[in-house]
Amino acid sequence: MDVREFFELSAGKWFSQKTSQHLTLKQSEHGKSDLIIEILPTDNPQAVQLCQQIGIDPGSIWGGIKYTWKGTISWDPQPQTAANQNGESIAIAVADSPAAKTGKLFYAPKLSSAGAAASTPRSVKYTLGEDEALTLVTQQENISIEERVWFESNNVRLRTTIVTQPSGDSLASFYSEIRMGGG
Amino acid sequence: MDVREFFELSAGKWFSQKTSQHLTLKQSEHGKSDLIIEILPTDNPQAVQLCQQIGIDPGSIWGGIKYTWKGTISWDPQPQTAANQNGESIAIAVADSPAAKTGKLFYAPKLSSAGAAASTPRSVKYTLGEDEALTLVTQQENISIEERVWFESNNVRLRTTIVTQPSGDSLASFYSEIRMGGG
Repeated sequence: MDVREFFELSAGKWFSQKTSQHLTLKQSEHGKSDLIIEILPTDNPQAVQLCQQIGIDPGSIWGGIKYTWKGTISWDPQPQTAANQNGESIAIAVADSPAAKTGKLFYAPKLSSAGAAASTPRSVKYTLGEDEALTLVTQQENISIEERVWFESNNVRLRTTIVTQPSGDSLASFYSEIRMGGG
Repeated sequence: MDVREFFELSAGKWFSQKTSQHLTLKQSEHGKSDLIIEILPTDNPQAVQLCQQIGIDPGSIWGGIKYTWKGTISWDPQPQTAANQNGESIAIAVADSPAAKTGKLFYAPKLSSAGAAASTPRSVKYTLGEDEALTLVTQQENISIEERVWFESNNVRLRTTIVTQPSGDSLASFYSEIRMGGG
């Protein structure tokens, strides 16, 4: 499997269950979400806009990756106070070299389709491992984020993330995602 | 890191948070537990008994691994019905060859220290990957279990397990474990 195949296998509609565990506070947060992942053609206006923002030729990419999610989240002590969590994001994978399994994933939350002022794209480093798990590593303002995504089967995708603050506090999250019919 | 070093780094007292997500029922279960992992000397009576049960020379192992846990667990719809979950288990790692990073982990739940009738040991296959994560795979009566254990740092251990029934139903669990002082 290469990186493109990894994202193509990710395309579809998923039911996602999330738990975040705060390691020092010893509290947890739970969420459920519908997650839609789509591969956009290279001439998609949002994909083209993202390419322009990061300064690469849209003709050099194999497509954009669009994430849309809609769900709820609640904290351990107050499960009744569930809040809505909706959003969308577009990403582009740029390999370090044509056949490399490492590269950067550039993403922009809430890109404007009208081409108006959009948020600045961010980048994360990716590595597709021997075990076909995708690892994403980023450092933002002294906060380190590491994510691991892998397929248990074609219809079950698992994810872990760990976010570490400069203080050493860590938040570990786990997502199990099951492919929904009609995806 | 070799397998022995992996278990030596695991030794100590951990605070463990667990979440199990049922992929088809879309329900989750949450638990908190104290987990103590000890390396037993090769002449420990329980380690010797386990070696005898599986037919290997106690002199050929580097030690036993004792797990003791004490915690509570509750299901998503009834968080108030927390049940106690206590137990202990002893394991021995037997490499496929002296320098191999693959082998079998034999374990016996609730071994009798008096040498009386003990439960039959079970075995799981282990692989210590390039990324220093330990993967454990087992198949019991058509149920497949896959576990992945890795260190985020010396004091943070993460684990995922996925249990798949012959029907295809899966239960995915995530544990974050933080080392406690005085461990």
